[in-house]
Amino acid sequence: MVDIAAARGIVTPRDKQAMAYLVNRTELTVEWGHCDPAGIVFNSRFFEYFDIGTWLLFEVALGVKRSEIAEVFGIVGYPIVDAKARFIAPVKFGDRIEIASIVTEFRRSSFDVEHRISNQGQIAAEGNETRVWVGRNPDNPAQLRSQPIPADVIARFGRS
Amino acid sequence: MVDIAAARGIVTPRDKQAMAYLVNRTELTVEWGHCDPAGIVFNSRFFEYFDIGTWLLFEVALGVKRSEIAEVFGIVGYPIVDAKARFIAPVKFGDRIEIASIVTEFRRSSFDVEHRISNQGQIAAEGNETRVWVGRNPDNPAQLRSQPIPADVIARFGRS
Amino acid sequence: MVDIAAARGIVTPRDKQAMAYLVNRTELTVEWGHCDPAGIVFNSRFFEYFDIGTWLLFEVALGVKRSEIAEVFGIVGYPIVDAKARFIAPVKFGDRIEIASIVTEFRRSSFDVEHRISNQGQIAAEGNETRVWVGRNPDNPAQLRSQPIPADVIARFGRS
Amino acid sequence: MVDIAAARGIVTPRDKQAMAYLVNRTELTVEWGHCDPAGIVFNSRFFEYFDIGTWLLFEVALGVKRSEIAEVFGIVGYPIVDAKARFIAPVKFGDRIEIASIVTEFRRSSFDVEHRISNQGQIAAEGNETRVWVGRNPDNPAQLRSQPIPADVIARFGRS
Repeated sequence: MVDIAAARGIVTPRDKQAMAYLVNRTELTVEWGHCDPAGIVFNSRFFEYFDIGTWLLFEVALGVKRSEIAEVFGIVGYPIVDAKARFIAPVKFGDRIEIASIVTEFRRSSFDVEHRISNQGQIAAEGNETRVWVGRNPDNPAQLRSQPIPADVIARFGRS
Repeated sequence: MVDIAAARGIVTPRDKQAMAYLVNRTELTVEWGHCDPAGIVFNSRFFEYFDIGTWLLFEVALGVKRSEIAEVFGIVGYPIVDAKARFIAPVKFGDRIEIASIVTEFRRSSFDVEHRISNQGQIAAEGNETRVWVGRNPDNPAQLRSQPIPADVIARFGRS
Repeated sequence: MVDIAAARGIVTPRDKQAMAYLVNRTELTVEWGHCDPAGIVFNSRFFEYFDIGTWLLFEVALGVKRSEIAEVFGIVGYPIVDAKARFIAPVKFGDRIEIASIVTEFRRSSFDVEHRISNQGQIAAEGNETRVWVGRNPDNPAQLRSQPIPADVIARFGRS
Repeated sequence: MVDIAAARGIVTPRDKQAMAYLVNRTELTVEWGHCDPAGIVFNSRFFEYFDIGTWLLFEVALGVKRSEIAEVFGIVGYPIVDAKARFIAPVKFGDRIEIASIVTEFRRSSFDVEHRISNQGQIAAEGNETRVWVGRNPDNPAQLRSQPIPADVIARFGRS
């Protein structure tokens, strides 16, 4: 029997078997300027990698260029309120790494993204972001506030 | 009665009343290059702020310049294995923030540092780092491995 | 005889003796995350240092917080159109450096800033930025365009 | 008649017609964290782009992974002593840019690299780096010093 989910490039999050969101994978090279005097990626750069992973995931899922997502969906953005990383193995200058990114949960107006960074097939780091879907208060556009994530947005992440 | 701990500039970590380590406070200005198109500090920069906070805390506690700590204590460094941040309130270009940093726990060869970033007296972000005390394997200097944190090092953080 | 210019903290640019603008000096510490695997400041970070130097110089000269300069002077900002650096001596982790910044020339709508980075009394790097005074086209606010630098702005830099 | 130089992917530098070195082109996307509150790439990030361009150019020309170049050629590296950029047109979040990098001159122990960043076919920025071929003093390995660039290295850049 064909595994449709796998065939469509989606995965089953560990804790919520009923949901299966799109995973997006991208590769990048660790640059000289990413590394610290110990010769390994400086910790803050991993959070840049995670941010890149989220933007790419959203571009692929939504089918909208990242620079147009805010306008298309009538929001200001989806800022991070919580970020975590576990650094499992060193990542060095010149390493070619893969970032696999997936939304692990959508809530009313916030969501979690998980990132796994692999280096030559081994997990090197894991990251988690909690982000909030933020727009303008229609009664006072200068004021930002969280908004419900549209069902259509969630659907585009490939919930099965 | 004089509060000796307060007088010496040390605080009591929330969960471990028996221990009271030194807290170090520093101020910095949020620079233009720290901020993203939303006009607020880009998330990865907070992890740079936390790193600065840890180095300053260690300089003050150990009484050794940060560039000499590794040599003085015979280690390679104390790399981060786990990092977290909660972003509570936006921090913007030009804001003058305070970073208060404290070790919340020393274990055999690892320790936790907590950072609180205040902006005009309000908590704007909290960070946590878990770091490992790493040296060279005496049998094979090319190999790094965790080492016990010397009691003298811990003592300098002002455990009461 | 008292050197009034020196007493007022102003200097004479090398090439234009008739003009003497304010020089602003600030110190900063080279952080771990600023340095590359060679253990020295990664070149792009020097351009962050120069940017910091320019903002501080403008705050001091104009007497306005950097985050309010655009609003107070009715501009969008003063973006860089040309940047240069000469790296003369290595700057390493933990070094305490001084950045001395001065406007070397004001033109109609652009100006040059020169930065000198000293490390223990020795020049370690020099930088030059050319920036443009940019506002909105009153006929089309979506359009940016260079604007004449107000005489009052230039005067505040202490031209003698 | 076939233009052999063009066919081999080499170009003629503007000022030195007799020499024609390899040009390497790479593309990258402008990330959220690269941009400042004006919504455009922060100036220091361009110098990261140039650095990436130089590493890729050397990988392609030398046929050696960037992380192995120092070891293969017995050097410590090729640090920058002089860097310049001209910013011609704004580059914004999400823009897909091309970096074209070429050595414009090899001297005894230093060389110049020129970078052109194009955005949708238009030149957006130009950069120039002067770098020095640096190794260890054989009489005192703790001491770094410039070394002659091997003829073989230069030859691999496709001098015609």
